[in-house]
Amino acid sequence: MPTAAAGPEIERLIQLLARLPGLGPRSARRAALSLIKKREQLMAPLSSALQTAMERISICRVCGNIDTSNPCTVCTDERRDASVIVVVEDVADLWALERAQVLNARYHVLGGTLSPLDGIGPQDLSIDALVTRAHAPEVKEIILALNATVDGQTTAHYVTDLLGGAKVKVTRLAHGVPVGGELDYLDEGTLAAALRSRTPL
Amino acid sequence: MPTAAAGPEIERLIQLLARLPGLGPRSARRAALSLIKKREQLMAPLSSALQTAMERISICRVCGNIDTSNPCTVCTDERRDASVIVVVEDVADLWALERAQVLNARYHVLGGTLSPLDGIGPQDLSIDALVTRAHAPEVKEIILALNATVDGQTTAHYVTDLLGGAKVKVTRLAHGVPVGGELDYLDEGTLAAALRSRTPL
Repeated sequence: MPTAAAGPEIERLIQLLARLPGLGPRSARRAALSLIKKREQLMAPLSSALQTAMERISICRVCGNIDTSNPCTVCTDERRDASVIVVVEDVADLWALERAQVLNARYHVLGGTLSPLDGIGPQDLSIDALVTRAHAPEVKEIILALNATVDGQTTAHYVTDLLGGAKVKVTRLAHGVPVGGELDYLDEGTLAAALRSRTPL
Repeated sequence: MPTAAAGPEIERLIQLLARLPGLGPRSARRAALSLIKKREQLMAPLSSALQTAMERISICRVCGNIDTSNPCTVCTDERRDASVIVVVEDVADLWALERAQVLNARYHVLGGTLSPLDGIGPQDLSIDALVTRAHAPEVKEIILALNATVDGQTTAHYVTDLLGGAKVKVTRLAHGVPVGGELDYLDEGTLAAALRSRTPL
């Protein structure tokens, strides 16, 4: 939908903003207006932050993380336990685990999940690199932190099979009731999984 | 909330994106990731669109519209009826009216509404400039297209009083049932207004 009164430069800015996840045409217009109004406080810093990101950010050649150094700060951090590799679908999942601050391990970003319907096969994911890393002598455990979706679990099984040749323990995240979750709102699959994996008090 | 695994450059990009209306910390992270992944298709064009906007967009000194020319394309468009000035709160409202393609008039952007609670008085809005424009001989009608909120209507009354000295007709948008609206979902004020302003079939 054209804004008519705005020139092509503003139109183009709105169209690009609308391609960001979470912003539709309407919120993209609001975002563009906000940027134009907060020229010095918001538009200038965002413009230069994007410029910096363009110049400095790259994808880690070891794990697939996004960082300004390559290999990334996680891969080069000597204090991290190199014997555990946590496999995630996406960098967003890596960030989520880092925010939780429960891990001191290395990561491996697959870049998605196997999805035959979408034409995503093993060659589209960073699986070969993971198998190679798993054969390194220091690696003892691979934790598959994939989403608990059909595609995520299919991928987990596929990766587990391929890792059979490496001398590593392959584990996956536990299924169960989310902390703070109410049973009434949970699906049967989660309840069944939580019951099966019940722990003694 | 820090992402920890991401460097300060990514962190800064996320923080700036989170300041856009419609994006929270979570969606800002997703937007940043999307930008980094679609480096050539999205990040580069957005970066250059922001650069262009920085250099070329300004606020029209006549009406307060945002454009790459100053006075803006609406103010300089000779085909537009210079006898009617449509007063809006914000450029977003101007865009909304332009999208509706029901007007061929000039605009005047107030830049907000009177809001004593938020400390916004007449001096914070472009009211003096409006009064000056209203005294121009070619201006016959001022349409107050302000939001139907308490602040919007207070501002409308205030502006109407100030325009008393100018030889112009001051009108406001009709209240009533929105097209496609169901009576059952409308508030009493709207229903009462729609009844009062009922029109013969």
